[in-house]
Amino acid sequence: MVRQARVFREKQGIDLKTGHRVEALDLEEKGGKGSTLEGEDFEFTYDKLLIATGSRANMPDLPGVHLPGVFAVKSLEDGRRIKKFLVEGPVKKAVIIGMGYIALEMCEGLRSRGIEVGMVKPGPVFIPWMHRELAQVVLEELETKGVAVYPGHEIKYIEGGKEGLKVVCADMELDGGTVFLGVGVSPCSELAEKAGLELGPSQSVAVDRFLMTSDRDIYAAGDCADAYHLVTGKKTWIPLALRANRAGWAAADNVIGGKVALRGVAGTAVFKVFDVQVARTGLSVKEAEDAGYEPAEAVIQSRSRAHGHPGSTGIRVQILGDRKTGRLLGAQMVGKEGVAHRINAAAVALQAKMTVEEFSQSDLAYAPPFGPTWDPLLTAANQVLKRM
Amino acid sequence: MVRQARVFREKQGIDLKTGHRVEALDLEEKGGKGSTLEGEDFEFTYDKLLIATGSRANMPDLPGVHLPGVFAVKSLEDGRRIKKFLVEGPVKKAVIIGMGYIALEMCEGLRSRGIEVGMVKPGPVFIPWMHRELAQVVLEELETKGVAVYPGHEIKYIEGGKEGLKVVCADMELDGGTVFLGVGVSPCSELAEKAGLELGPSQSVAVDRFLMTSDRDIYAAGDCADAYHLVTGKKTWIPLALRANRAGWAAADNVIGGKVALRGVAGTAVFKVFDVQVARTGLSVKEAEDAGYEPAEAVIQSRSRAHGHPGSTGIRVQILGDRKTGRLLGAQMVGKEGVAHRINAAAVALQAKMTVEEFSQSDLAYAPPFGPTWDPLLTAANQVLKRM
Repeated sequence: MVRQARVFREKQGIDLKTGHRVEALDLEEKGGKGSTLEGEDFEFTYDKLLIATGSRANMPDLPGVHLPGVFAVKSLEDGRRIKKFLVEGPVKKAVIIGMGYIALEMCEGLRSRGIEVGMVKPGPVFIPWMHRELAQVVLEELETKGVAVYPGHEIKYIEGGKEGLKVVCADMELDGGTVFLGVGVSPCSELAEKAGLELGPSQSVAVDRFLMTSDRDIYAAGDCADAYHLVTGKKTWIPLALRANRAGWAAADNVIGGKVALRGVAGTAVFKVFDVQVARTGLSVKEAEDAGYEPAEAVIQSRSRAHGHPGSTGIRVQILGDRKTGRLLGAQMVGKEGVAHRINAAAVALQAKMTVEEFSQSDLAYAPPFGPTWDPLLTAANQVLKRM
Repeated sequence: MVRQARVFREKQGIDLKTGHRVEALDLEEKGGKGSTLEGEDFEFTYDKLLIATGSRANMPDLPGVHLPGVFAVKSLEDGRRIKKFLVEGPVKKAVIIGMGYIALEMCEGLRSRGIEVGMVKPGPVFIPWMHRELAQVVLEELETKGVAVYPGHEIKYIEGGKEGLKVVCADMELDGGTVFLGVGVSPCSELAEKAGLELGPSQSVAVDRFLMTSDRDIYAAGDCADAYHLVTGKKTWIPLALRANRAGWAAADNVIGGKVALRGVAGTAVFKVFDVQVARTGLSVKEAEDAGYEPAEAVIQSRSRAHGHPGSTGIRVQILGDRKTGRLLGAQMVGKEGVAHRINAAAVALQAKMTVEEFSQSDLAYAPPFGPTWDPLLTAANQVLKRM
């Protein structure tokens, strides 16, 4: 999201104040105060307040994370600084700490510049929320494309090394000209917390379906705010772009007196790891168990095109259903084509709170260049039905 | 679907009788009779009977349709004969009569062999069920790829011509070494009709949700049988592969005493016209009006990838909602990528009988290589909501 401040000021008539940090809110007086970059104090009052403070990249508690050449990957400014560093280095090797969406997506950009990549994290399981068979496809794609993947290594510190930097683990070391920190994000909720607003999961700002916080004159939207999970009905914090954008629109409507209610999030996500598309929606097995469901799981292998159609590649689908209620709980998918948009069929089924049986009867599209007669999602749904 | 008779006989123990035409059924006696290719009569009795007679290509009532070099495009045998004819000709020009799914899909195969293609039909509107703006994209793709498209020409007859054949219209002539008939299919329901079984739309065999015909010991499945439409709840005849396959499984279960009910069809379809993917689900404006709805329509232009992402191409989406009930009635889409599987999200929404508002809140996947933050389907849903 790149937009210049003057667009807000000149075209939209918004009194945009950059360089102003709000440090405290007074809910009784409906006001706040803070200081500017130049060190001057300022105050303001409000009729309605929207907190849209976003999230920040987590900084692991490691000696050396502030060394030159160590980067978080969050803001446009991060991206610019990284690009400059890679070009000026020049960097031959990079180490990525973490293996989440952002960490995985970075590999392709680095390898396309001819940079050797090693990824490391303390947790022993590669993509822990994903079915092992699907995660293996992603792992193999990384390794095929020259990325060294090291899960299960306790990281001790970062220090100078022969390539410039060195990530020192309990049992190994990784050299690199640069180190990327891809260990998740946290909501910027300190202001809300200090003001006494109710917090949600992961210290996000708690909001109702109208994006209203525990104070009726304060709304919150974007990565800083929580949401209801479509499947469990419980509060969750899954900071993704569509929800943030949608919440912005709804909060704006509600601040001016509207009554726009958002229905919740399913955690639908897709990302690209070199030539492999990876997608998920809804709950993983562990999330389902934690939420009190009795999950039945099926994993199938299918093809991206009809039998014998040239160019067909493998697609693996996992589907999760609840033995007690029959409900569809989630889906995961990996493959080289036809994955990114296919997941949306399952996402809509979650939105509609469909049972697996209902979903399995969906009239999905078929043509030989685009899939088998039975869409891989339907094949998986038929399989999990047998176990429910 | 290519499977050898001996597989049924030897591996599955099925007493498969090829070359046997059943000519009459006796519902009272639960039996039937017919004759073999060799001219011998035969009889049989049944406990339960499954009619799976499929559909046949329509033959337009034109002088010359039986000339050598004129082909319908339906069976594997048709395909083999066509391939042989094209190779032996060799054919330099082809004329296609009709502009439906099959006719449109044939163009690519013919052009890839360097054959000039002209398409002609009497109806004045190119893809009449599709929104004009979307149909125009398909038309332009055909023309860009060298296909001459002539809607609105009354066809008089086919005769010999300088390329071999000539399609003579009221106001023009098209020469070709071969002529393809792509003017739809009809159910093979004569046997059922003669036996007094109830018929459905387009003379298909009427079945209930269990695939049972009006006789409780006779089932019908595949292209010969009708179905309930998911949106209207009324009978329809939309002979597509997934429904045929699904009905086969369900009928087999029910013939042996099961109670598998099918929920209906949405007419979800996708096809490829050179580099353009074309997809639909649910009702067109005319179908919606005919079914008594008050359709509101929106058409939007979006992109296949995020703003500024290299390789992004245009996607056009049409969404139809009902002003009276708020329900989603249908969707159509054209574009060079990300169309074929995206339509399934709308298909599932129809399956769940969602309102446009519910659908518009779906938590769909986002990543820059695969679409904008707001999936084109959501953008279209948001637009049609404003008109409802």
